[in-house]
Formats: sequence, C-alpha cells, structure tokens
Amino acid sequence: MTVGDVRDLAVGAGILGTGGGGDPRLGRLRLRRIFEDDTHADGVDLVAVEDLPDDAHVVGVGGMGAPTVSDEKFSKGDEELRGLRAIEDLAGVEVDAVVGFEIGGKNSMAPLSTGALADLPVVDGDGMGRAFPELQMTTFFIYGGTANYAALTDERGNQVIYRDIDSPERLENLARANTVEVGGRAGVAFPLMDGAFARDAIIPDTVTLAGDLGRRVREARRTDADPVAEVCAATAGRRLFEGKVTDVYRRTTEGFARGTVTLEGIDGATGELRIELQNEFLVALDEADDPVATVPDLICLVDRDTAAPIPSSAVRYGQRVAVLGIPAHDELTTDAALSVIGPAAFGYDYAYDPLEPAPSGEDAP
Amino acid sequence: MTVGDVRDLAVGAGILGTGGGGDPRLGRLRLRRIFEDDTHADGVDLVAVEDLPDDAHVVGVGGMGAPTVSDEKFSKGDEELRGLRAIEDLAGVEVDAVVGFEIGGKNSMAPLSTGALADLPVVDGDGMGRAFPELQMTTFFIYGGTANYAALTDERGNQVIYRDIDSPERLENLARANTVEVGGRAGVAFPLMDGAFARDAIIPDTVTLAGDLGRRVREARRTDADPVAEVCAATAGRRLFEGKVTDVYRRTTEGFARGTVTLEGIDGATGELRIELQNEFLVALDEADDPVATVPDLICLVDRDTAAPIPSSAVRYGQRVAVLGIPAHDELTTDAALSVIGPAAFGYDYAYDPLEPAPSGEDAP
Repeated sequence: MTVGDVRDLAVGAGILGTGGGGDPRLGRLRLRRIFEDDTHADGVDLVAVEDLPDDAHVVGVGGMGAPTVSDEKFSKGDEELRGLRAIEDLAGVEVDAVVGFEIGGKNSMAPLSTGALADLPVVDGDGMGRAFPELQMTTFFIYGGTANYAALTDERGNQVIYRDIDSPERLENLARANTVEVGGRAGVAFPLMDGAFARDAIIPDTVTLAGDLGRRVREARRTDADPVAEVCAATAGRRLFEGKVTDVYRRTTEGFARGTVTLEGIDGATGELRIELQNEFLVALDEADDPVATVPDLICLVDRDTAAPIPSSAVRYGQRVAVLGIPAHDELTTDAALSVIGPAAFGYDYAYDPLEPAPSGEDAP
Repeated sequence: MTVGDVRDLAVGAGILGTGGGGDPRLGRLRLRRIFEDDTHADGVDLVAVEDLPDDAHVVGVGGMGAPTVSDEKFSKGDEELRGLRAIEDLAGVEVDAVVGFEIGGKNSMAPLSTGALADLPVVDGDGMGRAFPELQMTTFFIYGGTANYAALTDERGNQVIYRDIDSPERLENLARANTVEVGGRAGVAFPLMDGAFARDAIIPDTVTLAGDLGRRVREARRTDADPVAEVCAATAGRRLFEGKVTDVYRRTTEGFARGTVTLEGIDGATGELRIELQNEFLVALDEADDPVATVPDLICLVDRDTAAPIPSSAVRYGQRVAVLGIPAHDELTTDAALSVIGPAAFGYDYAYDPLEPAPSGEDAP
C-alpha cells in the first residue's frame, strides 16, 4: 500500500464509518507525508489475516476520543507507535504486525502510519469492520481476547499503560477517562494478540475492501457509472432509500451525539425514512416505525450523486442522499457479537433481522 | 518496627492526619497480621533518610481514594506492592526502599506492610508530614521530582501504569479518574526516586515521630499525665482552643468534604473558634475572623481528655475537644511548598503566618 492508495482508502473508510468514526482527512494527509518521505517511499506491506503465523505478536492500534476534538487538537502522529512500544517494553516481546481496531472513519489511517513508522506490516483487516464508539466493541474482545495490555499516549508524551484489566468494559472506562484528561484525543494500542488468536478474531480483508470501495467510487465519478451502485456492488449492499433530509434532531448525552434524521422521497418517489443515530447510524425505520435495517448491519448515508460519505455530524436539511444498507460481516452477527453490538446493546428494542446480501446489480430501492 | 509498635503508630498518624487521611484501623489490623506471621515476625527495618545511598532506588507508596470508601471496600493488602513491582518491571530496576507518601491517617500503614511483604526497608519519613488530599502535594513533586513512573492497582488485579506524565497535577487527575473507575479505592506507587534526591525531598523521621506521639499518649492515659500536653510537647505544638463543638456544617463538592466546625469555650472559658475544613482542617479563625492557624501548619482536633484524634468526618455536636496547632516541617513552608499547599492553593485569601513552635510546657491556650 503506497501513497497512491491513500485517498481511495480514506473514501472507502468514510463510507464504512456509517456516519461515525471521524473524518480520515487529517490522517490521510499525515499518511501521504509519511509515504512521500524517502524512508517510507515503499509504503507498507499488507499481510493477509490467514498468513499470520501462530506465534506472531499482533497489536491493535487507533485513536480514542471525540472525532470533533481531533479535527482541532492535532495528534503528533506517533501516538499509536509509542503505545505499541510501551506494550513491547512491558510484555518483553517484539511486535510483528499491527492491525487497526476500526476500519470505519479516521481510524483507518493510524495502523498504516504506525506500520510505516515502525517498519512493520499491517494486517489486512480490523476489529470492527465498520465504526463503533467503544473499545469493547472490537472482535478482539468479543471473541475472547483479554485486556492483557493496552497503552494510551498523547502528543505531549504522556503514557498510560493498562495491564491485566478485568474486563474490556473497564478498559474502555479507564481509557476514556484518561483520554478526557489529556484533552479529548489520544492514541491507543491494545491488546497483545498471538497470530493464532488474531487469525480467528480479526475481520479479514477490510483494508483492501475500503481501498477498493474508494477506487470504484473514484472511477465511477470519472465516467458515466453510478458511484452509489458501485458501493453496493462492492459490498453486497443495497439502496434502502433515496431522498431529501427533511429534519435533523441532535442532542449530546452521556458523551454521545444522539439524534434522529428524517428523509422524504423526491423526484416523484414517496415515503419517509427515519434514522436513529448514536455517533453512528444505528437503526433505519420506515413510515410504520418498522426497522428496515439495524446495527450491526451498516447504514451509510452518502451523497446521492457522488457517493461521498456523510458523517452524522454533517447531515443537514435539504441534502439529497442515498441510504445504503450493507450486510455486516459474519463475525459481527453471532450471538456473542450481538450481545455487545446488537440493537439491544445500544438501547433499542428491535431484534436484529439481518439484511440479505443484495445480488449484484439489484441495488435499486 | 514490630508488632508492638503498630498501635502507637496508628494513634500518632491519626493525630498527624489533621482530620483527614482516613482511619488507620484497618491498615493497622492488616499490619498486625503480617507481623504476626512467622515470615515477617521481625517486622520491618526503618532506614533513616540520611542513610539512603545516592544510587538507591526509592518508591513512594500509599492508598488513593475516599477514606470512607476504603472503610467498606477492603483492599487486598498487596496493591502497593504490585504497583512497586510494575514500576520495577517497566523501569528495569530493583527498588531498595519504600517510603510512605503520607504519614497522616491510614496511609501510614501501607509503607510498612509493603516493606514487610517485599522484605525491603521503609524510609523513616514521608512526602507530606501530615495528610493532604492530592498526589501533587507531596514533597517528592514540590521539590522537583517528576511523574516519571507511577502505578495504580486494585484488589482485582487491575494495573494502570503512568509513565513520563507531564505534570504532577495531571498524574493526580489521571489516577483519580482511574481510582473512581475501580470503585473508589486503589493502591498507588510513585515516583521512582534515587537516594540523592530522596534525601532532600523526603520529610525525615515522621514514622518515628508518629510512633512516639502514640506512645506518649498511651503512657499518659495510663498515668496522671495529660495526653494532650504530651502531644504538644512531642511536636512543639500548642493548644489553640479548648471547648465544645456547637455547630458542624458539611457539604460534599468537587469530590471533597468541605465544611465548617464551630467551637465555644466551656468551663468558664469564653470565646469561639471556627475551623474551615476540606477533608483536612485547614484554617482556624477567631471571633474576629482572623486566622490563628492555617495550612500547612497542622490543625488537629483531639479529644480533650484522651487526645484521641477526631477525623473531620466524625466531628459531632457536643464533643469536648482540644484544637492543637502544630508547626509544619520546614519543607512545607518554603515558597515552592506554599504555592502548592499554602492557604491560597486551597482557595483561601489568608496569607500563611507560621505558628511559632511552642517552648516545651507552654501549651496552655
């Protein structure tokens, strides 16, 4: 993966962010800069999940904090790397590969810059397959990984290291409080996994998927093709709705941006769609208040013409959008996963009714 | 220091707690038990501050959290030891001696149990010379020590390690938030000091002082002597007031118990004294609202007959008490110290006017 791939990856990661995860733009600019440096001109090697040796040491990386903070409080760029080094120091191991814990949104970038700076391969995969708001919502933890080691660092050099934490939720709480103390944004690295475990726990091929998504969107924009249809084709997703944003209600409670987006049909189309959001778009409801898609399936708002992803923080009255429903990866739909990231985990009463993968070419609403 | 010394030490530490620092009782019982075990029957060796070699590795230890929590949420007993071991692991050193960061109140006990369990000597001294509510209020930090290493552990085995934290205040904030997350009580170890620095920064001889105080009080209680006079004689302190508690006003704000205690003269004595508290008793004011003693000098409420220390949380209407003023150690009254622990640091407008040490035998009000 080299400098030419970065912009596509950022677009794809934005779509997979399902409205949350933050804007990859700053991370993309940083990554470009790293790749343009002679030392890192070859970019980073991606390693397929299935190629990880049993005894490889793998660490997840990414940023923690409110996306809106990190757009203004710039990171230094090596936070995750220093976190990884702290884990190496404490555990007495050398890490063999890094993996992003969240492909959706801005956290798609840190694994690549960390891999480049550390001269380590980056696993083609991640721990969420999309964006989620909390650390325990990674497949690393859902599939039995423990909070054995974690490290949080900031741009001033502060390091907080967590060891043998008794639950992923506690790690989330400890690290969240510390992130707030250092100003609302920090880099984190967690957990320390061996290759055998990582092969089972990591959602595979998501870096490639995000880059592919971005490339297809870019190429469609240059031709007569429909970028939105390309997104659907690449993800087995479908258009749930097309229309105009007619109402946006947002409130910030318990550290999350919660709200509702209401859409109405246009161009002769009728009907209404309502989307409930908590950072990410989590539930889409039809006029009868019946869910047409719920978390963990991906509900993505994109510009109807360009397929540019629209973050939940940037939804505005009058936008003409397509709402896409993308089936979640199988690893996100097991009972173990649903107990952590299903509708009930976010406080909704709806049962999870999986979206059927759309046959290629049948993405019309 | 052996099992016979523990009860005296607890009484003396209670007095030096100036109303805060928590009740040493549980720590005393734990320490008794450790000392009664064959393995630790010899107790622990105290090492004088001036005997620390230049290159010794010294770590401060104690508990963090609300005293009222730790009376009900028992610690496992080896929290501080595990914190010390975490620092050794990360720094790649072996610690040669432990030192309490707070002699006042319950934190007088953890250094001794840690020293016994680790088979390490305990420095005869501490980082506060009394009790204070926050970590940055230790002489370790006031005299230039950095938050190079710190570790927080709980009874379930959770470990949080802090490294290269950019200010003592930030360490306090990070560790306080994490203490709350693990239930309101944790053991902490910080910082890693070399002997040369520790000799300058540690307030010397306070373990001996606390034990001596307790012993004199105990012996006075058995004879016709006045226990309160013994406390004054041992500390160059004086009675500021004797009287009856006529009003207690407490509120809990910003995590502290704040309040005011009002005393009136009895047995023909007239006058009134008002004491402002924030966990500790911080300012004593006469009827004209002029301060007669302020932090960092020690303002201690003790039972008028037995000299038993009265915690700020246990002051009640009708108690007959003596209010003692004990001059703070010189290390607490420099400009550097006053900026962190002087009246202004606690939000009071009064300048610090040092108490004169009382000549022996002149402690009457």
